[in-house]
Amino acid sequence: MYIFYQEDSSRNFLENEEARHCAKVLRARIGDKIRITDGQGTLSVGSITEIGSKRVSYQVLDMHQVPLPDYRIHMAVCPTRKAERNEWMVEKMTELGVHKIQFIVSEHTHRETIGRVLNLERLHRIALSAMKQSQQYHLPEISIYSNLEMYVAQVEASERYIAYVASEDIPVHLIKQVRRQQPVEILIGPEGDFSTGEIEFAMAEGFKPVSLGNTRLRTETAAVAACHSAVLAQIL
Amino acid sequence: MYIFYQEDSSRNFLENEEARHCAKVLRARIGDKIRITDGQGTLSVGSITEIGSKRVSYQVLDMHQVPLPDYRIHMAVCPTRKAERNEWMVEKMTELGVHKIQFIVSEHTHRETIGRVLNLERLHRIALSAMKQSQQYHLPEISIYSNLEMYVAQVEASERYIAYVASEDIPVHLIKQVRRQQPVEILIGPEGDFSTGEIEFAMAEGFKPVSLGNTRLRTETAAVAACHSAVLAQIL
Repeated sequence: MYIFYQEDSSRNFLENEEARHCAKVLRARIGDKIRITDGQGTLSVGSITEIGSKRVSYQVLDMHQVPLPDYRIHMAVCPTRKAERNEWMVEKMTELGVHKIQFIVSEHTHRETIGRVLNLERLHRIALSAMKQSQQYHLPEISIYSNLEMYVAQVEASERYIAYVASEDIPVHLIKQVRRQQPVEILIGPEGDFSTGEIEFAMAEGFKPVSLGNTRLRTETAAVAACHSAVLAQIL
Repeated sequence: MYIFYQEDSSRNFLENEEARHCAKVLRARIGDKIRITDGQGTLSVGSITEIGSKRVSYQVLDMHQVPLPDYRIHMAVCPTRKAERNEWMVEKMTELGVHKIQFIVSEHTHRETIGRVLNLERLHRIALSAMKQSQQYHLPEISIYSNLEMYVAQVEASERYIAYVASEDIPVHLIKQVRRQQPVEILIGPEGDFSTGEIEFAMAEGFKPVSLGNTRLRTETAAVAACHSAVLAQIL
């Protein structure tokens, strides 16, 4: 069943694109039952009471809170130069169950292109659509940090990993290092890798080097593979 | 170091796009050393002897065969309706280390759009680029089967798994079922799922149901997640 989004769970109507999709695409009728989430874990079942082109109202029949898992996956990644690869990362990590996506402008990130390749409103829409499509009820938080220090300053998790290319020894794969049922913070190196200063800084801040496998992954593939590894580590 | 492609390892020159990239983009000079693969595991080091706009010749200094791992990952997936999602699957599975990608036109696949969404030549180029970029030397084989029976008829691996949506019991996750160091064949359900007849047929042919996790994945995400799970199972 299709899931609709209404950010404010105290409201009992769909607006804008959600209302249009309900009325025009799915051609809902009065009395039809729909599922609605606020992206904060609330899942409601509503019965449609009124259908307009800009607003579809419903009576809430049932409302409950879907709990978050006892782990949290927080990904931190530097934006690629291509908008569609950043968007793809957000879509795929959301489908796989990420909880937070943090874009970091690292020293080797192309600063001048950030505005063009990272559109937070668009990324939010993509995450929303992926959340609904994958039948989840928690929308990942998406944010941008203008350097590594600002990102690290707000990290709370004590489980911290960093994947970068230039490591001399091959570290142990992420899936073997992640501890279960813990919040985990995973930092992925950009195209062109982190600078030596950034790597030293992250390691001093408790980020442990990890491998993501034997093949060299593009930054967006590395982010998705790392996110997936952290999800899989929970069931091993 | 950039890796060039020359399909025929007995030739000692780059052609077409590879020659152009070497001469014009990387501005190679006579005497420069380059690495060349045939996508069949051969990795050569050559010294450039002649640079033309359509052909760059080299003397082979060293040639060796990079072995395939002792496992093989063979993915079978139904094409999505969007060409870019099929292309994305090929790129990402190649980066992660897939050995064979088989597209199947299932009962619920939109037959009329196949020609538009699956361009084998283009998919081959994408796989080639992903292979080089991820520093691998074996090009995955890509093929199309016009129904499930034709695909199954040529499967050799005895390790066979199927991921589909409609299963009643939740099966065990793929990563826990895959045996190490074996060829494995993984069949992914299409948008709209396999038909009951297809599921029964595949199961009768030895395909065991697997889960790919708690969230509902799009078909292309499922394929990449399954491929990644099979790779990770090798190191657990």
